[in-house]
Amino acid sequence: MSQFEKRTTELKKLVNQQLAGMLTKKLPITLYDPMRYVLQGGGKRLRPLLVLLACEAVGGKVESCLPAALAVEFLHNFTLIHDDVMDQDDIRRGRLTVHKKWDVSIAILSGDGLVALSYRVLLSKSHPRIAEIGTLFSNTLLEICEGQALDKEFETRKEVAVNEYFVMIQKKTAALMALCAQIGGILGNGTDAETEALRSFGFHLGVAFQLQDDLLDIVADEKLLGKTWGSDIMRRKKTFLLIHALQQGDATTKSQLQAILQKEVIAQSQVEEVKKLFQVAGTIEATQQHINRHFDLARQYLHRLPSSQGRQFLDRFLDSLVKRQY
Amino acid sequence: MSQFEKRTTELKKLVNQQLAGMLTKKLPITLYDPMRYVLQGGGKRLRPLLVLLACEAVGGKVESCLPAALAVEFLHNFTLIHDDVMDQDDIRRGRLTVHKKWDVSIAILSGDGLVALSYRVLLSKSHPRIAEIGTLFSNTLLEICEGQALDKEFETRKEVAVNEYFVMIQKKTAALMALCAQIGGILGNGTDAETEALRSFGFHLGVAFQLQDDLLDIVADEKLLGKTWGSDIMRRKKTFLLIHALQQGDATTKSQLQAILQKEVIAQSQVEEVKKLFQVAGTIEATQQHINRHFDLARQYLHRLPSSQGRQFLDRFLDSLVKRQY
Repeated sequence: MSQFEKRTTELKKLVNQQLAGMLTKKLPITLYDPMRYVLQGGGKRLRPLLVLLACEAVGGKVESCLPAALAVEFLHNFTLIHDDVMDQDDIRRGRLTVHKKWDVSIAILSGDGLVALSYRVLLSKSHPRIAEIGTLFSNTLLEICEGQALDKEFETRKEVAVNEYFVMIQKKTAALMALCAQIGGILGNGTDAETEALRSFGFHLGVAFQLQDDLLDIVADEKLLGKTWGSDIMRRKKTFLLIHALQQGDATTKSQLQAILQKEVIAQSQVEEVKKLFQVAGTIEATQQHINRHFDLARQYLHRLPSSQGRQFLDRFLDSLVKRQY
Repeated sequence: MSQFEKRTTELKKLVNQQLAGMLTKKLPITLYDPMRYVLQGGGKRLRPLLVLLACEAVGGKVESCLPAALAVEFLHNFTLIHDDVMDQDDIRRGRLTVHKKWDVSIAILSGDGLVALSYRVLLSKSHPRIAEIGTLFSNTLLEICEGQALDKEFETRKEVAVNEYFVMIQKKTAALMALCAQIGGILGNGTDAETEALRSFGFHLGVAFQLQDDLLDIVADEKLLGKTWGSDIMRRKKTFLLIHALQQGDATTKSQLQAILQKEVIAQSQVEEVKKLFQVAGTIEATQQHINRHFDLARQYLHRLPSSQGRQFLDRFLDSLVKRQY
């Protein structure tokens, strides 16, 4: 096990212990059971790790940013519960989603409760810049809502431009990863330049991450994915892949894609067809190129920080995302 | 117009202007239109008024607590949107609820957005005790979620004890009104004793207010109420009235009530029957006695503050709640 793997394993264990410790309260069970269920669902804890590693990369201590690391994980899990209701997803990380295991009311409420917990832990440790951190956190929450609203709007729209897609994923996904790296920098007492570089690092990491999600939906192994293969297509999600193929594909590819999208119900059997159309249109490579570009940009911003073991760990963190299969 | 009416009219106008100003942003409309809709729905603005009047009652200035006043109104409107989804209510303040006018996804998302806005404005003004205020706010949000979860749990339970009911409304309703008066006191630089007295004042005001809500559901004029008359009964809500009648009514009253509650669907025509059973069991007077007791307790805590025009305004505020018809 490399030093990086050792450190992230330690940090992930710490995060999991703390998260569990904050949910020992039992009543009312209809509020707390679903929270525990979703938090014990085997998440990768990427966002808290990003906070903690960013803090260490500017010379800060884990203790100073641990509450913020827990806060971003609570916030992330809130978005999963509410998004699954809106997207009518039945499966997440290989298990039933909260609204399927319980019901929509319980999913709404346990999501709301996670937001409360996220702010409670975020604001639990005094810090001279706590109001600023809380404001950044709130702006990010609002951006996530805006991103999700755009994502839903796009589902029923015939055409979505590439730049509209990028605005949507910046809000829905990249804003939170940018925040993670930024507050890690602030709480680690990084300089303004370091904190800004970390924010941009997290931002491009987030953009690449979402593009990967779009790609993995159609190229990943369903077992690893933990959700239905091709679900984006079945839900007519305007992913980068779909937008690209509809714009760059030849006339036949476009009309075949449009014919599938106009069906009343898109069956899973059609996902294979769509995948082939994406290959014909060069969509898979184009997506991979965009992913690589944003990972490269993330790396460039990261390297504005002085070299250190902490920075090296963030390099390895980036590498692990580049290679992810699910 | 009395001095109190003049002042509250001014403050309400200020609150409404500020709320509208914070929602001028247009996009995405599926996020912001429902927020504007619910905030323009003609709320009484009781909670922001409570913050502002509490602040003035300890000698503070409106400017120092205006952000907190806006925050509690955003938070209150968030609870209305999400609760209406969970309770499947179609009408609120005489208009369609958000999930009826739009859909459940949009209701979830616009509620979430209001939480983000509430924290953003709360944390926008620096204050030495801002982290403490944010923590109180978060604890209250969590309590509201717990209260709503209990309320939903009680709907499907056969028996609920009076003390369980009180725990539920303390969390669901009284916690927020307690918070309003408390943060008004903190931001107005009240002493600890004053701030504690204000908190207890708001708490008992909230308990009385919820008991009134339970009562008004069955005694108020439907037009004034802005929602379906007797909706609590139709939804088998364990209100104070129902719990009291099931405990204190004679054998005939109890069995008649149970017979209605065991029906597959409770029609509005049965609400009149239930009302008569409540009258037979002495439930209406018993509820009114509890309401009076909590208003009296609120007044006693209020009078721990030194006499001033500000305190007098809170006395009038209390009087206006005592007399409310909807």
